[in-house]
Formats: sequence, structure tokens, C-alpha cells
Amino acid sequence: MSHTAELIAVGTELLLGNIANTNAQTLSQSLSALGVNVFWHTVVGDNPNRLREALDIARRRADILITTGGLGPTYDDLTKQTVCEAFGKPLILHPGILEDIRVFYESALHVPMPENNTQQAQLPEGCTVFDNPVGTAPGCAFECDGVHVLMLPGPPHEMETMLRRHVEPYLRKLSHEVIVSQDIMTFGMGESSVDELLHEKMAHMTNPTLATYAKPCEVRLRATAKAATEDAARAMLAPVWEMVCETLGDIVYSGDGGGLADCCHGHLIRRGFTLATAESCTGGLVAERMTAIPGASGVYRGGVVSYWTSVKADLLHVPQNLLDTYSPVSAECARAMAEGIRNLTGADLGVSVTGTAGPDPDERGVPVGIVYIGLAAPEGTFCRALDLGRRRRDRIQGLAANHAFDVVRRYLQGLPIEQI
Amino acid sequence: MSHTAELIAVGTELLLGNIANTNAQTLSQSLSALGVNVFWHTVVGDNPNRLREALDIARRRADILITTGGLGPTYDDLTKQTVCEAFGKPLILHPGILEDIRVFYESALHVPMPENNTQQAQLPEGCTVFDNPVGTAPGCAFECDGVHVLMLPGPPHEMETMLRRHVEPYLRKLSHEVIVSQDIMTFGMGESSVDELLHEKMAHMTNPTLATYAKPCEVRLRATAKAATEDAARAMLAPVWEMVCETLGDIVYSGDGGGLADCCHGHLIRRGFTLATAESCTGGLVAERMTAIPGASGVYRGGVVSYWTSVKADLLHVPQNLLDTYSPVSAECARAMAEGIRNLTGADLGVSVTGTAGPDPDERGVPVGIVYIGLAAPEGTFCRALDLGRRRRDRIQGLAANHAFDVVRRYLQGLPIEQI
Repeated sequence: MSHTAELIAVGTELLLGNIANTNAQTLSQSLSALGVNVFWHTVVGDNPNRLREALDIARRRADILITTGGLGPTYDDLTKQTVCEAFGKPLILHPGILEDIRVFYESALHVPMPENNTQQAQLPEGCTVFDNPVGTAPGCAFECDGVHVLMLPGPPHEMETMLRRHVEPYLRKLSHEVIVSQDIMTFGMGESSVDELLHEKMAHMTNPTLATYAKPCEVRLRATAKAATEDAARAMLAPVWEMVCETLGDIVYSGDGGGLADCCHGHLIRRGFTLATAESCTGGLVAERMTAIPGASGVYRGGVVSYWTSVKADLLHVPQNLLDTYSPVSAECARAMAEGIRNLTGADLGVSVTGTAGPDPDERGVPVGIVYIGLAAPEGTFCRALDLGRRRRDRIQGLAANHAFDVVRRYLQGLPIEQI
Repeated sequence: MSHTAELIAVGTELLLGNIANTNAQTLSQSLSALGVNVFWHTVVGDNPNRLREALDIARRRADILITTGGLGPTYDDLTKQTVCEAFGKPLILHPGILEDIRVFYESALHVPMPENNTQQAQLPEGCTVFDNPVGTAPGCAFECDGVHVLMLPGPPHEMETMLRRHVEPYLRKLSHEVIVSQDIMTFGMGESSVDELLHEKMAHMTNPTLATYAKPCEVRLRATAKAATEDAARAMLAPVWEMVCETLGDIVYSGDGGGLADCCHGHLIRRGFTLATAESCTGGLVAERMTAIPGASGVYRGGVVSYWTSVKADLLHVPQNLLDTYSPVSAECARAMAEGIRNLTGADLGVSVTGTAGPDPDERGVPVGIVYIGLAAPEGTFCRALDLGRRRRDRIQGLAANHAFDVVRRYLQGLPIEQI
């Protein structure tokens, strides 16, 4: 018996277009993986009458209602009151939660809790409480006349933390089947090419299933299996993984859903190698993505953002005559930057990025989208030349950073790196 | 008399979470600027019964219905048929449009038009046609019993092109008022404190209005005025800006909606100053956010990501005895890093960040959340000490980067910087 969920996002900022309803996307992915149908998303403002109307409509169409937003401490955060009125549940002050919020303010924010946060500790009578380790508003769930109502906070990182920690386990208990998903990550081929190679096979799969999702600059595949136990579902996924690797080859870089930076981090640890970065057009993005990983300091030594040409010469010791002869956006400069940072930091690997991110060509007229990746390694220096075309600045920077990680992971996996 | 629009997005890919409903955001921003109320967003799948239900509900609540998606050539693209049935409009083949689609295929895609594209040339009788210069599916609008129905394609770049070209002019003709918004950015105070200071005033405002939005690590305010002309609306916003600045003081850093990095970029240009960065726990995030701005190279020279202590010593020339005595996470080290990068790059200002981002304390036992910001300037070196508490790693990094920008902007604006 499968459940049907309806998502109701509450927030005038969504109706004004200040933010997109990414919570609906995150929740939908998760619900789909759990085998819960989603037929409607609704967005209403911070308006109790319209929220009431949305709840009345939704409870006739679905047996799981999930609201996001409107749990904050301000006067226009009305979700709990409105939901409780609609379902005839009284709101009760939970002294333990009030204490948690007070402690969060004092220990994390170092200020006393403002008085209006007290209302965040009021929750529906008899509900399951979802604590919020990254914010102040707890979420909750209750059942009423066969409908499960879940209320989650609006800030996406709070919602997502609560989703993984509480909502997925809560929903899993409502079902007798286990759904297991595996994310297979690829880099180096466009979505339509991946789709063309796999379409025939994907179209005939029912359980397990396989679907493609284009992320900015890369393609993710999600294999999903449904079975009575987790082990049985996992066993069904193994042949899918093998088929995808066989079909797509070495563009598959991970089967655990982590991104390219995580993949490099893992390979660096396994090989006992350290990395350093020298970035021009990516302006620190490669370093930032590497150091976003907890424990990055085990493998990442540091880097230079050599935005000005003088910084390439003075800090990275790229020879001035090389810069004059070949220009800072060149394979030669990329190689010298990679070697420079490797020597300076003593890292096993130095990776570099130089290019033109736009919107305008660089001062020497190198067109937007031309990028060089350098990799200095114990056995020599490699280079990948790219023409990323006239994309948007942030896309070029993102793609160039991905290529830098891809060059590092190919080196660490012993795969060929294109040279020029 | 103001109009009320309701947005209905059609597409199973939205309900599966493959994509976010960014069309709703783009349309909402535009409608808000045009003075059209938006009280509901709805998402349904490629399912004629549920789309019919959504239309029946929406036409009772709004006088402008805008659908996105479901205009493609495949069998599950059912928007036109379903809308026309719901409003009793016959679908008519437009030979001119069929010709346009055929030409688009042959000249832009260099293939003959597939037969199933013929249905894209069928449009409601008597409608206004919105041609699609970047795709094949035209959009359209018709009026029926006082309700305007607009159908737009789903791919965001097609939708947005049609919005600017056809939809905004169409809607402008329906209205006699202009709406102007101003985003006021603040840093340094939590949402509930900002709300507490402004609540009394906000609650009594009807036109113009003022609302708060918490972004990660900062608070944005939006003032909105409605008037007969743009000038009149702008004149109404000026006293709101003054009131907010007076109430919140120097935590207000911008009235144009740009973030802290944009704000620093603007001040650096105005002062003719250049900046360089030395980052430890933020791992390149300050550099990355600076270089995300087009034209950053005018004011940003470069930086060092001194993740390992040896990089602080070797590249930034932080004295080894200082590192030994005070530890790399100290005010002394932050100052030396800022001075080091300023000397190395020749920039007017060197800003530094060193701290413990977590999840574990650093090797010397400095607790998670302890961060020092250094600023080396012509008249001396400043430092801000922070205890950001036990937040998530990415939040500590984000907040620390924001504090680095805040220290720079306060310096450039001649405001006091806390010293330790």
C-alpha cells in the first residue's frame, strides 16, 4: 500500500520570488526514493486563511501532509497555530525544548534568547518532536484521522538536516518495503549523451530503476531498488552499478553520491598524497571546495589565488619571460603555476587553473571560456586544455574547478590525462 | 484595482524533484514588480485530471492564471488540450506558426521537423500568440469570463525570454499601478533582534510595506511601494530607507540588494584601493566570493590559502616563534597573516581569517567556532575576535567569510572595528 504526500510551503518570500522552493525539490527526491507518491506542491504566503484553505484541500487528496516554513520566532510565522486549529490539536509548551532553544542561543549565539522565541517551544499535543540541531525551530509530526501531518522549518539547511535525521526514519516506519538508492556520479559527458547510451536499458527497468539527473556541470544517475529488506534491495543494485560502469567507462567517478572534491579527498587519503592549489580564474573555488570537506587538512596543504599577473610572478615564481611570451592564460603558465605551488608547499601534487571566466576577454584578448588545468606530480607535469565556450561566468568557474578535480582524480586512479 | 495571478507549473519532473520550480520564482519576481498579487503557486504532474482540478481551483481564486510547462511535442505534454477543455476553447491549427517551427528545425537544428511537432502549432481560438525565438513551443494568452489565461513553455530560458518579450507587456496593459521594491542589507544582528526593533513600525505600514528575510548569516529587508508612477513609488521608499538606517545603525551595509562582497567591491573601487586575502579556516571562500564578481580583477590582487601551518610560515612569512607561542588560531597569527599577504602582493589592504571550523577542535585544542579576522591597512593592523559557537562547519566558514568582508567594509566606510 503506497502513501501519497502533499507538500505545502509557507512563506511570502516564495510568492515574491525572493527564493525558489528548493525545499520541495529536496523533499520530492527523498519521498520518491522512499516510494511515497507526490502529486501536488503548493506554495502559500504567511496568511492563515490561505494556509487553512491549502490544508483543507490537501487533506482530501493525500495521507501525508508536509509543511515547510513559518516556524520562526517572528509574528508572521503562523504555520503551527493554523495547522493545529485545522486539525483540532491544542498547542502545548514543551519546557525541554524551551531549554534547548535557550541553550542554543547562549552557547552558539552567545546572546540571551529573545522573548519571542518562547513560541517556538510550543508544539501540538502528543506530537513526535523533531529536534533541530542547526537552528532554533523544532519540527514535529502527528497523526489525525489517518492523515500524518509533518511540520518542518523553512531554511533549507535546517529542513534538510531534519529530513535526514527524523523525517526519513519516520516515513520509513509507515511502509513495509525498503527502498534503497545509490547515486552514481559521472563527469565528462553531457546529459543527452549519457541518456542516449543508457536510454534503452533504463526504459525497460521497473525494479530496480535508473534515472539521470543533470547537476550543473555533471551528470548524476540514481539507481533505486525496492525489496523486503535492505540487504535484498542492495543486492539488486549491484548489477546496475556494474552495467553503468561498463556502459559509461571511466567517466564514472563515484558510486557513493559524493562530488568530485570528495572523490579526490578519498583517493588522496588512500594514496597518502597531499595536494596544493594555484588558481587564477577560479579564484579560490578549488581550494574552497576542498576545504569544505571535514578533515581536509589531512591531505590539503594550501594554495595561492594568483589573480593578478604580478602575484603569479612574485608568489608562484612563474618566470616573467614565460608570462610575457605565452600570456598568463596558456598551457605553459598553467604548468608553471602547478610546479610553483608544488615546490612552495612541498605537496605531492600541485594543481593549477588559469583561464578567462568572462564576461569580457582577458587583457590580451584570450576569449571567454579558454581554460588550462595544470598538474605537477612526482613523475612530471600534465596539462588539460579546455574551451568551455561563451557560458556564464559562474558556470565557467564551476566547470573549470570540476575539471581541476577530474584531472587530479584521473591521475590518482592511474587513468590517462589528455596532454597538449 | 489590482490583479491576482496564480501560477500552475505542469511537469512530473518537478514532483520527482529532478528540478526545482525556478519558473515560479522568476515569474513571481516579475509579477511583484508589476504590482500583480501572487497568493498561490501550484505544481502538478503531466496528468490531465489533476491539471483540470488545479485550473478549477485557481480560476475561483485569481483573475490571471499562468501555466508553465507541458507545451512540448511529446504525448505527455497535455497543457493546451486540458486548458482549452476547461475553458471551452477549441484548438485551432495556425499555419503561420507551423511554418515558423518548420523553419526553426531546418535553420537552427538542421534537421527536418518531426511530425509530432505539428501539434505545437495548434493554439486556442482567438488567442494572443507569444512566439518563441529560442525554442519550438509558442506560448499564448486568452481571456475567458474575466480570467486571463497564459500558457508558457517549461524550459526556464524559453519561459524567461517569453516573459520579458511578451508576458510583461501583456500584463502591464492590464494594470494602472507601478510597484517598486528596495532591498536593504544588514549584517551583524540576528533576525529576531532586527524584527524586534522594527516590528512596531512594520506592523503599521500598508503602502509602502517593509518585511525581513533571513538569509544564511545575514538579514535582508525589503521595502515595497505602490504608486501611479515609478518616481512616485521611489519617493515613498526614501523615508523607509532613512527610518531603517536610523533604527538599525551601521549594521545596514547596502540599499541595493548586493551582498557583502559586492559592497566591498564597490567601496574598494570608490576608494581606489586593492585587496588581498590570507585564509586558513575559510579555505579560499573569501577569495572565491570576491572573484565571483565580474570585474573583480580591478580591485582584488590575489591571496594565499594557508591551510597548513607550514604554509603560513613559508608563504606568508608568519614568524615560526609567533606560531609556536600563540598558535595558528590566535589574534597574533591573524594580524601576521594579514600583514604578510599585504606585503607580498602590494595590496592596500590585506584581510586574513584563521580559526577552527570543526567538526573537531584544532590540534592545539582550540574549540570549534573560534575565529580571528585580521586587517592590515596603511595606518595599522586591526583584528576582530569571534566565537561562532558549535555551528556546522559550512556555517562557520560562511559566517567567518562574512565577518572578513564586514571588517573590510567597516574599514572602508570609516566605521570602528572592534579590537582585542
